[in-house]
Amino acid sequence: MLRVGVNGYGTIGKRVADAVAAQPDMEVAGVAKTTPNFEAEAAHRRGYPVHAAREDRRDAFDDAGVPVAGDLDDLVVESDIVVDCTPAGIGAENRAVYERHDTPALYQGGEDADVADASFNARANYDEVAASDAEHVRVVSCNTTGLSRVLAPLDEQYGVEKARATLVRRGGDPSQPDRGPINDILPDPVTVPSHHGPDVNTVLPDLAVDTMGVTVPATLMHLHSVNVTLETEAEAAAVAETLTDESRVFLVPGDARVAGPAHLKEYAQDAGRPRGDLWENCVWAESIAVEGRDLYFFQAIHQESDVVPENVDAIRAVCTDTEAAESVVETNRALGVGFGESEETRRVAADGEGATASADD
Amino acid sequence: MLRVGVNGYGTIGKRVADAVAAQPDMEVAGVAKTTPNFEAEAAHRRGYPVHAAREDRRDAFDDAGVPVAGDLDDLVVESDIVVDCTPAGIGAENRAVYERHDTPALYQGGEDADVADASFNARANYDEVAASDAEHVRVVSCNTTGLSRVLAPLDEQYGVEKARATLVRRGGDPSQPDRGPINDILPDPVTVPSHHGPDVNTVLPDLAVDTMGVTVPATLMHLHSVNVTLETEAEAAAVAETLTDESRVFLVPGDARVAGPAHLKEYAQDAGRPRGDLWENCVWAESIAVEGRDLYFFQAIHQESDVVPENVDAIRAVCTDTEAAESVVETNRALGVGFGESEETRRVAADGEGATASADD
Repeated sequence: MLRVGVNGYGTIGKRVADAVAAQPDMEVAGVAKTTPNFEAEAAHRRGYPVHAAREDRRDAFDDAGVPVAGDLDDLVVESDIVVDCTPAGIGAENRAVYERHDTPALYQGGEDADVADASFNARANYDEVAASDAEHVRVVSCNTTGLSRVLAPLDEQYGVEKARATLVRRGGDPSQPDRGPINDILPDPVTVPSHHGPDVNTVLPDLAVDTMGVTVPATLMHLHSVNVTLETEAEAAAVAETLTDESRVFLVPGDARVAGPAHLKEYAQDAGRPRGDLWENCVWAESIAVEGRDLYFFQAIHQESDVVPENVDAIRAVCTDTEAAESVVETNRALGVGFGESEETRRVAADGEGATASADD
Repeated sequence: MLRVGVNGYGTIGKRVADAVAAQPDMEVAGVAKTTPNFEAEAAHRRGYPVHAAREDRRDAFDDAGVPVAGDLDDLVVESDIVVDCTPAGIGAENRAVYERHDTPALYQGGEDADVADASFNARANYDEVAASDAEHVRVVSCNTTGLSRVLAPLDEQYGVEKARATLVRRGGDPSQPDRGPINDILPDPVTVPSHHGPDVNTVLPDLAVDTMGVTVPATLMHLHSVNVTLETEAEAAAVAETLTDESRVFLVPGDARVAGPAHLKEYAQDAGRPRGDLWENCVWAESIAVEGRDLYFFQAIHQESDVVPENVDAIRAVCTDTEAAESVVETNRALGVGFGESEETRRVAADGEGATASADD
């Protein structure tokens, strides 16, 4: 059993801990947190050993009635690998701690690429990272993960001459009431390209991609408006088929009448998903359209959870000899990735193929 | 003096009436409205003869203390041309009324293109419409106007191989409290292309353009994320210069620190603009970027007002022999279009040229 430490127990950290706990070959060595808030209390009740990430705040955990299993160093010593899920920029500061104990570590996409020896997306470059023997690996951000998952198969199948995407980003997560905007549509960043295109190139180095970022008053998911100029012509129905074959792409059937992220979240909650998570890219089948060699589609990306299965795969890529396909299947099975499992969902998806087929009318 | 009737006195109608009243060669023959709400009362106080558009509601105007100058037929008889500013779909029903009196009419972009004999955008096709002797002319919608104003000069200067735009649309106007979404990012329409690209082709028939629509929880302006594959290479600074030369494009200087529509509206209000209107496309100078032959930029479009000067020009195109350039200058002067008039604004714009020049670094 791989013993996995999780440093940082916020939006990503708590999901990574649960995803690790669900794997047959992994267990949670413990989680580290700076403050004993409601999330720390929940971690304790879930049975995860809670470590005080800052020695000077250890008393606060005692005061809050959250038993402290140790400090951050103790957690690193207990762990075969640490998944750093601390806020952007803190991961870079933590690398020295992991190196001091010669413990491999994963970092999140909020860190600069140079925090680690390699950047990772299971669909794009699992094998390269595994072969590199990199022990410090950065899992790319939610948006970059979302782009990589569709651009990799499109490039393999049709060749990508140039990809262009406008990322209509949520202003903050549901648990970030202090973020904005309230009533505005912000070019963010106002300069072009945004960092997402170059970030895709950390896992797909040869792919031409330009991205533009916009931030809006919503919290549920990002929405990507994607254009790909393909190297070869393709029917919309064939592209839909290509994306259907991707285990972490959910092709939203046209007749499911999913208007946007709120419906997707509702669907995930109705399906009993933990926290209503959507680990998959959600691509609207109806939106897939081809004009000449220009492909267009919309996809929604759940910023809180799409990187979670990627972190699990990255653990195996760094610590084991498991191959990409095997790891992805295992991760998906343990988490329940894919809406195609139930008879009912298969029916909805099958009905949706009609809409898909007609998208290129 | 051209006597102009305005049928429909909502968001667009009241602005068109004021813009007509500001022109030296036009006067407002009267306005027609279906209900005697706060806007009807304001029209009366401004001195516009208020007509009851529906005979069966005429008593309601009396009850509300808004004197009725006549019915819709009376207004059409009084007018040399009627600008129909009724809700989408009603204009088509009204055409028979205007034809019955042999009175030319303008329609708004919410109507289908076939409501009229020609579609109009001053920058794209004033001369063609004037030469056609069309008496029923549709002024294209706010988004289509915004796209046409930049694509026409880019096509003339560099050639447009293909334009692609994601239109991040406001959910509703500030005066539409019943519209949504509240916390969502909707593909709208989910099918690609949205109607905007084909609509651009009603005024620029030979231009290749694909558009995607997204609707978000904001009310102030639309935001366009624009990509144009040019036929010839161009420096970002040269493109900025091309757009600066357009009288209805406001190149937002980088050092003005305009984060988004809210800042633009604040700026327009500080400048004393009526209703804080922004008649110009607002293009962020900092956003103008070129990768190979791919040009990118962001522009904000004020859905309530950018078509207002276009309606004024369309009146002249239909009713007079005024040439395009002369009409545009006259309309701009009378309304105060352009932020380059004051010494202070010239200074801000001049400072901004530094940011523009560095946009292609």
